[in-house]
Amino acid sequence: MLTPIKGFPERAILTEVGPRDGLQSEPVFVPTERKIELVHALIGAGLRRFEITSFVSPRAVPQMRDAAQVLAAFRGRDDLHLTALVPNVRGAEAAIEAGADALVLFASASESHNLKNVNRSRADSLAGFAEIARLAEGSGTALQGAIATAFGCPFEGNVAIEAVVDQAKAYRDLGMGYITLGDTTGMATPANVIELVQALRPVLEGVDLALHFHNTRGVGLACAYAGLSLGVTHFESSIGGLGGCPFVPRATGNIATEDLAYMLEESGVQTDLDLERLISAAELAEELVGRELPGQVMKAGPRLKTAAMDSVRTANG
Amino acid sequence: MLTPIKGFPERAILTEVGPRDGLQSEPVFVPTERKIELVHALIGAGLRRFEITSFVSPRAVPQMRDAAQVLAAFRGRDDLHLTALVPNVRGAEAAIEAGADALVLFASASESHNLKNVNRSRADSLAGFAEIARLAEGSGTALQGAIATAFGCPFEGNVAIEAVVDQAKAYRDLGMGYITLGDTTGMATPANVIELVQALRPVLEGVDLALHFHNTRGVGLACAYAGLSLGVTHFESSIGGLGGCPFVPRATGNIATEDLAYMLEESGVQTDLDLERLISAAELAEELVGRELPGQVMKAGPRLKTAAMDSVRTANG
Repeated sequence: MLTPIKGFPERAILTEVGPRDGLQSEPVFVPTERKIELVHALIGAGLRRFEITSFVSPRAVPQMRDAAQVLAAFRGRDDLHLTALVPNVRGAEAAIEAGADALVLFASASESHNLKNVNRSRADSLAGFAEIARLAEGSGTALQGAIATAFGCPFEGNVAIEAVVDQAKAYRDLGMGYITLGDTTGMATPANVIELVQALRPVLEGVDLALHFHNTRGVGLACAYAGLSLGVTHFESSIGGLGGCPFVPRATGNIATEDLAYMLEESGVQTDLDLERLISAAELAEELVGRELPGQVMKAGPRLKTAAMDSVRTANG
Repeated sequence: MLTPIKGFPERAILTEVGPRDGLQSEPVFVPTERKIELVHALIGAGLRRFEITSFVSPRAVPQMRDAAQVLAAFRGRDDLHLTALVPNVRGAEAAIEAGADALVLFASASESHNLKNVNRSRADSLAGFAEIARLAEGSGTALQGAIATAFGCPFEGNVAIEAVVDQAKAYRDLGMGYITLGDTTGMATPANVIELVQALRPVLEGVDLALHFHNTRGVGLACAYAGLSLGVTHFESSIGGLGGCPFVPRATGNIATEDLAYMLEESGVQTDLDLERLISAAELAEELVGRELPGQVMKAGPRLKTAAMDSVRTANG
């Protein structure tokens, strides 16, 4: 057993966002039974926390039109924690009715992105959360929050730390026990991860702070490393790296769950995940969306998978 | 100007290995004048150190058959440091004749890989270096060393730290002032980077220790982060991520120079490199080899390249 790298936590908890964040950004509609099959494969690999679907307008996001059916397949399993993204009261009611363990509310740290994403101001978004919070409380459903563009906005550039801190405080005051910093368009860097996590720590005591990185500029796992060096334990990722970046056609989106799990385990951080099974699930995800996914470990295999000497050709270094 | 992340050096020096390590692993032969064009583009982006070619058998490695011509195009430029890989005395003589600033000798830290790669034992490799060292000294050419499979062997698995340390000592005793730890098949992890760098420090005082990672399992930049956290200043990388992994068809090889430069600059580590020009060079590299390269920043662009709000479509998070 490896000792964790200095500063790293002994254990990390991953939330799999492939079924929602990943599949929502893929151009194909994956049939409901195949989504369920994928989640079963991920459970088999040891994952227990899922952002499993989104209760949004089926016209706006047809990929998520089977939200209730997907949730129904796992409803009542005490070993799982199933969250659903909800953009409004109507979505919240549907998610509660369908049995989500937690509702995920989201707004952007930048005004332009919020306007673009949900067609209202940040202030209006936050004001709307109060009613959802009452609904959640009344039904005994937990409330979580995601802060989109926490590390930068594709329209505005840098985002003020104060904007993120204020939003996190507002989330905390609404009773959210888990808050995600979303690297919506891959602008996070190790330095701004460190700066932001350090700024948020004092105001989020008792709240689980989760980091959600995109690998759009190649530094997704380096950003996770930066978070780990501060002892962050909650991360969100997507099997195989499912999901793209809506801003750049050729760029990748979410960091791949199996790559993150590989780095964690190889850094002495326990995850209770089975890497071989994660790789199989990533292969299944690739099959479901019919394109090559950006995950690397799924192609190269685990580190100590040795080759026969006559199976390869090498030439001078 | 950013302050470097805690423990990181103020400045890092990159050696571009694309022209040798990268192009050697690509299936196409890039015409000499286009190789020269690529190096000029890289110089324009601020790079000054190049592993520019390899004096190997043109039959074994036809991609490098123009070694002398490539070197001739830059010979005598005092602002550049041009190294050439040499597998034997004959290659060393040719590299000296062609005007290389330094010869790079290489052997693997694992016996199986060395046998496979150069068809001789590690002991025989090291014994052969003595004669090359005399040649280099006689001609006033510097000597560098690369330790292949320093972080693991695809045939043997883990490699003993002692094997790497002993090899580094032997290199040092041969007069090498720059020693590279090569992550030949992408088995480096942040934890073994830290372990190995810490073990080598005491025996390599006065020697430049360089890290050369592959992104085969997605953690190449996280490994660079680990090295940076110990103050390592020398890194090797390949523009666009040129070069593959001979062991896994779909896997990537070298980390991309522009991605590494992006991470360094965004972490407050100065590189004197121009990211936009690196991206242009990566696009040129992509054109030269006729395939999509794995570099990420070349696809997404610099971090603060903002988009117009009407140029993209986003949908709920």
